Amino acid sequence: MTQNSIVKSHMVVAQNASGRNMNVPVYRITGSRPGPTVYIQSSIHGAEVQGNVVIYQLIQYLKQLDVCGDIILVPNCNPVGTNIKAGEYTLGRFDPVNGTNWNRGYFYDEQKVHAFAETVSAEESIASVKQRFRDFWREAINEKLQSGWGLGLAQQLNLKLQLLAVDADIVLDLHNGPVSTRHVYLPEYAADAAKLLNIPHTILIPNQFAGALDEATFCPWWTLQSLISTQRQETVSCNVEAMTLEMGSQEVIAFEDGKQDAQSILSYLGKRGVIEDCPYQPLTMRRVGVYLRDYRTLYTQWGGMVEYVARPGEKISTGDTLARVLNIDELDNEHATFTVSAPCDMIPILHFPSASVLSGTQLYKAFTRYFDITSE
Amino acid sequence: MTQNSIVKSHMVVAQNASGRNMNVPVYRITGSRPGPTVYIQSSIHGAEVQGNVVIYQLIQYLKQLDVCGDIILVPNCNPVGTNIKAGEYTLGRFDPVNGTNWNRGYFYDEQKVHAFAETVSAEESIASVKQRFRDFWREAINEKLQSGWGLGLAQQLNLKLQLLAVDADIVLDLHNGPVSTRHVYLPEYAADAAKLLNIPHTILIPNQFAGALDEATFCPWWTLQSLISTQRQETVSCNVEAMTLEMGSQEVIAFEDGKQDAQSILSYLGKRGVIEDCPYQPLTMRRVGVYLRDYRTLYTQWGGMVEYVARPGEKISTGDTLARVLNIDELDNEHATFTVSAPCDMIPILHFPSASVLSGTQLYKAFTRYFDITSE
Amino acid sequence: MTQNSIVKSHMVVAQNASGRNMNVPVYRITGSRPGPTVYIQSSIHGAEVQGNVVIYQLIQYLKQLDVCGDIILVPNCNPVGTNIKAGEYTLGRFDPVNGTNWNRGYFYDEQKVHAFAETVSAEESIASVKQRFRDFWREAINEKLQSGWGLGLAQQLNLKLQLLAVDADIVLDLHNGPVSTRHVYLPEYAADAAKLLNIPHTILIPNQFAGALDEATFCPWWTLQSLISTQRQETVSCNVEAMTLEMGSQEVIAFEDGKQDAQSILSYLGKRGVIEDCPYQPLTMRRVGVYLRDYRTLYTQWGGMVEYVARPGEKISTGDTLARVLNIDELDNEHATFTVSAPCDMIPILHFPSASVLSGTQLYKAFTRYFDITSE
Amino acid sequence: MTQNSIVKSHMVVAQNASGRNMNVPVYRITGSRPGPTVYIQSSIHGAEVQGNVVIYQLIQYLKQLDVCGDIILVPNCNPVGTNIKAGEYTLGRFDPVNGTNWNRGYFYDEQKVHAFAETVSAEESIASVKQRFRDFWREAINEKLQSGWGLGLAQQLNLKLQLLAVDADIVLDLHNGPVSTRHVYLPEYAADAAKLLNIPHTILIPNQFAGALDEATFCPWWTLQSLISTQRQETVSCNVEAMTLEMGSQEVIAFEDGKQDAQSILSYLGKRGVIEDCPYQPLTMRRVGVYLRDYRTLYTQWGGMVEYVARPGEKISTGDTLARVLNIDELDNEHATFTVSAPCDMIPILHFPSASVLSGTQLYKAFTRYFDITSE
Repeated sequence: MTQNSIVKSHMVVAQNASGRNMNVPVYRITGSRPGPTVYIQSSIHGAEVQGNVVIYQLIQYLKQLDVCGDIILVPNCNPVGTNIKAGEYTLGRFDPVNGTNWNRGYFYDEQKVHAFAETVSAEESIASVKQRFRDFWREAINEKLQSGWGLGLAQQLNLKLQLLAVDADIVLDLHNGPVSTRHVYLPEYAADAAKLLNIPHTILIPNQFAGALDEATFCPWWTLQSLISTQRQETVSCNVEAMTLEMGSQEVIAFEDGKQDAQSILSYLGKRGVIEDCPYQPLTMRRVGVYLRDYRTLYTQWGGMVEYVARPGEKISTGDTLARVLNIDELDNEHATFTVSAPCDMIPILHFPSASVLSGTQLYKAFTRYFDITSE
Repeated sequence: MTQNSIVKSHMVVAQNASGRNMNVPVYRITGSRPGPTVYIQSSIHGAEVQGNVVIYQLIQYLKQLDVCGDIILVPNCNPVGTNIKAGEYTLGRFDPVNGTNWNRGYFYDEQKVHAFAETVSAEESIASVKQRFRDFWREAINEKLQSGWGLGLAQQLNLKLQLLAVDADIVLDLHNGPVSTRHVYLPEYAADAAKLLNIPHTILIPNQFAGALDEATFCPWWTLQSLISTQRQETVSCNVEAMTLEMGSQEVIAFEDGKQDAQSILSYLGKRGVIEDCPYQPLTMRRVGVYLRDYRTLYTQWGGMVEYVARPGEKISTGDTLARVLNIDELDNEHATFTVSAPCDMIPILHFPSASVLSGTQLYKAFTRYFDITSE
Repeated sequence: MTQNSIVKSHMVVAQNASGRNMNVPVYRITGSRPGPTVYIQSSIHGAEVQGNVVIYQLIQYLKQLDVCGDIILVPNCNPVGTNIKAGEYTLGRFDPVNGTNWNRGYFYDEQKVHAFAETVSAEESIASVKQRFRDFWREAINEKLQSGWGLGLAQQLNLKLQLLAVDADIVLDLHNGPVSTRHVYLPEYAADAAKLLNIPHTILIPNQFAGALDEATFCPWWTLQSLISTQRQETVSCNVEAMTLEMGSQEVIAFEDGKQDAQSILSYLGKRGVIEDCPYQPLTMRRVGVYLRDYRTLYTQWGGMVEYVARPGEKISTGDTLARVLNIDELDNEHATFTVSAPCDMIPILHFPSASVLSGTQLYKAFTRYFDITSE
Repeated sequence: MTQNSIVKSHMVVAQNASGRNMNVPVYRITGSRPGPTVYIQSSIHGAEVQGNVVIYQLIQYLKQLDVCGDIILVPNCNPVGTNIKAGEYTLGRFDPVNGTNWNRGYFYDEQKVHAFAETVSAEESIASVKQRFRDFWREAINEKLQSGWGLGLAQQLNLKLQLLAVDADIVLDLHNGPVSTRHVYLPEYAADAAKLLNIPHTILIPNQFAGALDEATFCPWWTLQSLISTQRQETVSCNVEAMTLEMGSQEVIAFEDGKQDAQSILSYLGKRGVIEDCPYQPLTMRRVGVYLRDYRTLYTQWGGMVEYVARPGEKISTGDTLARVLNIDELDNEHATFTVSAPCDMIPILHFPSASVLSGTQLYKAFTRYFDITSE
């Protein structure tokens, strides 16, 4: 086995109020053989840090493995969000100045895909189409980034990261839930990938853009291959996959879990031809899937202090207790506590991380109408 | 003159983490004569408090005036946002839990307007259409509000307020900018109203919904009257107007200015038949308008410490200095400061309220390609 | 057994920016027999909520028990701190306006104790001294509270609560650590109480005032009894005990744990004559103590992402791994991680609750030079 | 005139959660002649930025002037506090993790001064005493900084800055108030310096340490010279002056005002022998002084929305209106507003920067029992 090369660089993505540059580390592993390009980033939400460990463990493994193609890894990809504290926790989900979610400003423009599709002739090879489309898309992102009146901080950050991912065949965005079991968001067309990851819960999402990196990656390719398939009257695939992996709970670093998470990703990459003779194979395990429309959020209608009784990942039946609530003004009577019950059969995937909730809080997110994903 | 009646009530809109109800005060003034219904709220963004004074002054004036119809006034309409401090200032623009803008969760569903329009016969009177549509829309909001899995806090608040406004012919949502001159957002079809308010700057907005109360009010009516106009092949108007008034800078209470603001609103209401023999008339003054697409935001490409040189409301020419920036790492050389110049002729309307800015900050918002609004 | 009475009232402690009163619930249980007065409050730090459950469980038990004297319970005693969210967590430790710790504004004035001690004659009974001192101290707190130019919010809150506690023989202030095992702060003179609680870790504190309620309670009594003891040349005790109980980790509500915590407190109260024929006895268990000077805080000299390896409550030897740190800029080399080792034998009691730490963070607090507390 | 030299360096003071060093710029101007050492820093409170401009303007002037001695300038001396945003404003007054005021962790230990004083013989020259004491004090700060279990972030920052100031004869700490007129804190023994600055309001403070840099500088010297004076039975002065200058309102950068502020400082430095033939002289102007005990804070007893009627710097008589408050729940009756009156004759120096206040808010700080400071 020839040695892979690892090159580290730093990309400036913002400037702080002191006028100092804020940068992200970019690790690029180039294999000794040709192969796909992979882009992996973590911690776009500042409190969701476990992905940084996963990237660390991936790098340790990849040093020993036979990589085909290029793997670009960007840990801690949001140097602003990582460093905003509000109390002891990290206020990492949105820009503290204006509330903008750090994960909603990636670029997508469906009209541009349609315009590009019209430039594809019936004879053009998919390889050529892919290369031209990448250049086209990079140009579009650059144009957006250089608009004369400027862009907001989150969007500038998102677009600079997206430029690093534009050549990738595989894009993995590593996140965490609040208090959460491991789960993954996959586009419906790539549902098979669910069997290649050691993640028990998969959400299948449609071709709709809501601003995140996975969507910003698969929406254009999905739309493009659909248009070409229609043109050619045959099913064409561009073989680009993008997903968001939720690596457990936020505010937690766990090195040993990170090894498992890394092996899970390596299993998938091995099956996709990124690693020659990959020693890690997808585990035989129960995997459950759900369509995005059935991944439901249960909001509170009340405020109070909550014990989270249902654990993320456990199957719950209609009427089972989800949570128990304390009402501090009624401790002397029968209204002192009440229970919140499951409105239907479900698997809670995550819950709110604080015992103190106002009305309108996302108490639980849960799989409903879920189904088994059969291993091959 | 017959006495108007003023009835005060309180509406619960949320519960806090202590389990206590949070309510808003609702003042309803019923005139001795029939007339339009008016809905006015203030402080949906918690730091934008001057509208509360404007409502106070309005009530003082209205006690002495001959009101036709009903006027519903809801000051301090966001009891959550008003009470979140982060340092000495009020973090009132978004839900501190999740970053949700408090002014983006009102209800609109274009498909429902189309569905309703199909129930309108060629003979039905506009008065009848309006009454049926209000009932239909109230039902739709209630349905949304009672969805089984619940809604987020901001949306619950928005919908409860929207129910108070659903019968109104005139809806005024009182806001403030960061450091700002007075300006107003009007739907293009109601551009004439600009001449009736003593506000120097008007932004004309198209029939597009982005979540705010004014849009949630005028989009359905605009769409409905367009559909009926097409059906009947004549221009039909439902005479419903909604606007967002920006009453200067946030974090400021000014009683005397509030009198002027109240007189401005009374001038408008007088012209709309809400006040009999209104003693306040629109002032003769220069008014400037702009289309929303030409109301531009200038973002920073750098971080640093800023002096805001251009004052909100002052006309600025291309190349004039907008701001001067200090670079604390270069105080010993010629890069110690630099200036930001106007990229085109403009009227700055507001600027960021802090001298310390990161890259990607909304430094200024400005009218470009503005035009005079001729008084009648 | 005669029925105890439970009377609930509400005490206003603040007004919010909407001008609305903010109050705390006050439950007073009066036993059918005479006995000591007990004061118990919880959640002065807004994120430390488990004490509210403990008070709930106490009330359930006390309804069935034979109470001697009065027990005043104030759950959720800080309605401001409970309701400040910053992201999903509760920013409950300090006033968000100015950083004032909510638990540092209670009243103590050593000079006043000395002045009072001079009024005690050699013949006066301790019962009489206690009654006169309570009146004297209540007067002093009231005087402070009514100072003409006013007081800060935290201090107003603290003093109003302290007035509820001024007649108490036993004061329990229920707190939580960040991620923490159960522990208790006791004044050195009341060290024996450690054996009566089912809490494994006890910190013995000297007669020094740092602003907290337990200190504000025991410092004057300690000082007073010392002065009288000197005067009379015999050891005199006022039999007033005050302590801070740390009921595990913040941001957590756990009903079953709350039962155990309540039974622990009942065991202690039974031994102190508050409950006749108390069915709960102190458990036989290992208890460890430490002097405050040996309860040490380990601060970081670096910033980074941390796995907390040492669990609160586990004995650790010199050189054992406390934490492992990830350095996201060095993932490709041997500096990618490093470990933080225990500088001496210790029992970690709590650690910082976030994986992301700046330099100067309180990583761990730990018992050093600890000793066994022998059960009787 | 010989050219001064300007040397710029950067000192690391912290590490952020990404593990990156955070540093402060240090500018050292060395004059061509011998003279005093001056230390000037700004923005230890992150939102108080005008001092950075003052340092900029000082550097511009000093390039042209004949400096005697050394001037060390540290703008933006708190890179953490400068960069914590909470909404649009800078949360710069305290560590967002734990509420620690950034300006309370400097070193002072009265016992150590006493210990040192015992080493001073009757014959030792003051110059020798000063040199030995600086070395002694530097050693003490270094010892504190290197304590084995570490220190909190604010204290680490404070001590590193204090080491830069330990050799200085003159220490100026540049701050801002919330909404504030210019004022200065001077130790009582250096009251004469008030006449040398163009600042209308001076607060004279006693020899008491509360954690700030000015106190940490003058307390040891004041104590030392008092002890030596007693030993020698004659008045001895060490000629070290330290002060906190409040340069108007926070969150504001104003270049032209910064020129005036710089000239004011230059006037003072000229009189102290730091600038040869200084072209700037203290202005003839009215200056008012107050003892710290008469610089009073007016706290609110209520929550509500406030118009600040009294302007900082204006003399106000007993009973004059300070503020007017809106009560949003009583807009329909005579309790809709109320006024807050001055409890005595006063000069308001600063007021709270937000219109929304809770009970216990520092509404105004004001000079009472003030007196004129006669110019020489």
